[in-house]
Amino acid sequence: MDRVKYLLPEDRLPRHWYNIQADLKTPLAPIIHPGTKQPIGPEDLAPLFAMELIQQEVSQEREIEIPDPVRDVYRQWRPSPLHRARRLEKLLDTPARIYYKYEGVSPAGSHKPNTAVPQAFFNKQEGISRLATETGAGQWGSALAMAATVFGLELEVFMVRVSYDQKPYRRGLMEAFGASVTPSPSERTQAGRAILAEHPDSTGSLGIAISEAVEVAAGRDDTKYALGSVLNHVLMHQTVIGLEALEQFELADDYPDILIGCTGGGSNFAGFVFPFLGRRFRGEQDVRVIAVEPSACPTLTKGPFAYDFGDTAHMTPLMKMNTLGSTFVPPGFHAGGLRYHGMAPLVSHLLAEKAFDAVSYHQLETFEAGVLFAQAEGILPAPEANHAVAAAIDEARRCRESGESKAIAFNLCGHGHFDIQSYMDYHAGKLEAYEYPSEEVAMALSGLPSV
Amino acid sequence: MDRVKYLLPEDRLPRHWYNIQADLKTPLAPIIHPGTKQPIGPEDLAPLFAMELIQQEVSQEREIEIPDPVRDVYRQWRPSPLHRARRLEKLLDTPARIYYKYEGVSPAGSHKPNTAVPQAFFNKQEGISRLATETGAGQWGSALAMAATVFGLELEVFMVRVSYDQKPYRRGLMEAFGASVTPSPSERTQAGRAILAEHPDSTGSLGIAISEAVEVAAGRDDTKYALGSVLNHVLMHQTVIGLEALEQFELADDYPDILIGCTGGGSNFAGFVFPFLGRRFRGEQDVRVIAVEPSACPTLTKGPFAYDFGDTAHMTPLMKMNTLGSTFVPPGFHAGGLRYHGMAPLVSHLLAEKAFDAVSYHQLETFEAGVLFAQAEGILPAPEANHAVAAAIDEARRCRESGESKAIAFNLCGHGHFDIQSYMDYHAGKLEAYEYPSEEVAMALSGLPSV
Repeated sequence: MDRVKYLLPEDRLPRHWYNIQADLKTPLAPIIHPGTKQPIGPEDLAPLFAMELIQQEVSQEREIEIPDPVRDVYRQWRPSPLHRARRLEKLLDTPARIYYKYEGVSPAGSHKPNTAVPQAFFNKQEGISRLATETGAGQWGSALAMAATVFGLELEVFMVRVSYDQKPYRRGLMEAFGASVTPSPSERTQAGRAILAEHPDSTGSLGIAISEAVEVAAGRDDTKYALGSVLNHVLMHQTVIGLEALEQFELADDYPDILIGCTGGGSNFAGFVFPFLGRRFRGEQDVRVIAVEPSACPTLTKGPFAYDFGDTAHMTPLMKMNTLGSTFVPPGFHAGGLRYHGMAPLVSHLLAEKAFDAVSYHQLETFEAGVLFAQAEGILPAPEANHAVAAAIDEARRCRESGESKAIAFNLCGHGHFDIQSYMDYHAGKLEAYEYPSEEVAMALSGLPSV
Repeated sequence: MDRVKYLLPEDRLPRHWYNIQADLKTPLAPIIHPGTKQPIGPEDLAPLFAMELIQQEVSQEREIEIPDPVRDVYRQWRPSPLHRARRLEKLLDTPARIYYKYEGVSPAGSHKPNTAVPQAFFNKQEGISRLATETGAGQWGSALAMAATVFGLELEVFMVRVSYDQKPYRRGLMEAFGASVTPSPSERTQAGRAILAEHPDSTGSLGIAISEAVEVAAGRDDTKYALGSVLNHVLMHQTVIGLEALEQFELADDYPDILIGCTGGGSNFAGFVFPFLGRRFRGEQDVRVIAVEPSACPTLTKGPFAYDFGDTAHMTPLMKMNTLGSTFVPPGFHAGGLRYHGMAPLVSHLLAEKAFDAVSYHQLETFEAGVLFAQAEGILPAPEANHAVAAAIDEARRCRESGESKAIAFNLCGHGHFDIQSYMDYHAGKLEAYEYPSEEVAMALSGLPSV
């Protein structure tokens, strides 16, 4: 039987997350306060995050235990399958062996619940009863809504108004899970009221929504803030993906030559590749790693590695990361999860250490690849995941030319069932390619804070 | 560890479908020709269906082999998980053990690919290059589109115009899989042109769309027709659900006291319960079975068991089934997959033999149950599946009252990611209950054909 799927039994779900900080050659640059320019400590973060999460953020331990109540929820859809794309291989007439880890089987349809669940759990454990967060199109918000209802927490989501109005379905999913969803900017916060006073018709931005959620969390003892990417502990929670994949490659009696993930804030990429990179760093097994980003928001391939704000409104501390400038607004491509001006500090740090390669694709290339994949494999990828698909197909085509039989593995981080409009636009010839907006980036980078 | 999921390894995917015709006490009533009133034979169906499917339709063999190429595609998401709903049990404070088989993990998000895949395969094997079908909201059409692209078949889908215009997302999914989708009524067929001549603004109906798809298939040698429910072979393909569940209950060291499924055309219900009913018929193990239908389209609880047409336009042969009359148009409730005037002849036959009980719920009750389930388990069910959820919750509450610890299992036949609008309407208090439309049914039943 030609295997098309490698499943792990429920009891082989990882018992620890992998913390790549233990295996870094050089330590991460500290997060610094924008006023004092001094490193900030755990106590500065305490108003916003549960103490356990703050400790995870700075931990140097290689393994951090996944608590049983978190594993109980993970087990509902995890371990997620590792698929062998045999029909795609045949269609491409390639000697490459193509694998994909499929995170679309989660109740929210993406990898986001991998961190939403532990974040909800650790807050609940510390007596917190409410969470506040922001969301753009709603992928993160719906994952956190699912996690919050499972642990009996209230959730307040600030959703960018243009998405609230134009993409109501993920909002409906959040509400069905019991979350309260407020269009941002709102009258609920000082930050929101200030924006509305100046721009009554503001359609909002992720930066504004972050400011509102942070303000709500900072102002109430019963409420903490939750973030869906970028931070070290978020990336670490996602390593359950790569840890499972390592075991699944053992089952397959194979090992990837090339690992591919798409990058927005960096969490699905990190979750998939960090456990493999750790093995390489420790001299156990080599692997080539490729990060794929949109040409229209090319943080890793065009952005400098510099201290910058995490948000547009400059409410956050400064992080050293690849950035296109915190005021950069990416053009309107459909992969909403990749529309972030910065990049996780850990991912940026590893790029600076040349731990992986970064490439960019424009929107039309990614949809062309996604439709080819869908018609071969029968699964419609999320627009974000299409970036990984495009790079994997290109690597497989290179194998056809060179005659090499490499094992190529990518993370299919979510399904496209909430993104059908983008495929309809592609089908109708209405999608733009969106090349690199160099002038807008130069303008935004001119405003980088001096450190 | 309290198990929350029972997975079968890939190599325990069933090798045969189960054909309940082998275990019936009395034979099925024949399908008859509406003109001659004589039974029709395989040769009458040959213009529309592949010969292998026609043979399956009338076979009396208990087991029919699942071909390897079909199992290869099934294996992408099958065996599907059997979950134990521990959080729901806790929320209901019930001694009942609640299980659900989850078909939402398929690439189309429902059970429909279980028959779409073999239908595409058997047609391909007999040299057919095109399929034609109809779809309402698109659940069946998108499953067949996935199956057709996997086997390299062209697919033409006639989609009811009101859904084509108002629910474009499943259309987008079908097109992404390479299918051609035509709003029905259309100028492509004589049936469509006749309707449009009389009603230029017709919003279409499933009956009209069936007529168009049948006409296209009958008129071209390279094209056959495919149906997503009702027929014996369709129900048999779905038994892969119940066959897996039987093995999963062995893993769980448990056996259901009560099995529950929702019924529209009957295929997800049949697929889940027939293998268990077969064991009961053969004296191996007892089980109580409940079919759940909408109060607004109560085929099993209110319809007579009589010969009727399968479609509104009276193009099909006559089948003996529970029916509300072929001209009955159900009110506009959201569970589109349950809006059918008739019922699979096999399911109707078994109701007449008192093999199971049938109950009905109105729309508000089903959404209330679905939201309760979603908030406990973190999975949003399709509106159709909410009917099964409602009955399962009621049975679990009865266990709380009586103190009995019964095992209750239901089929969660699909996720609700394409049906968020209905949850938003529920949330906004805009959903109607939709009680039994007795006068409309009486009117439609007055037109039953005499046999």
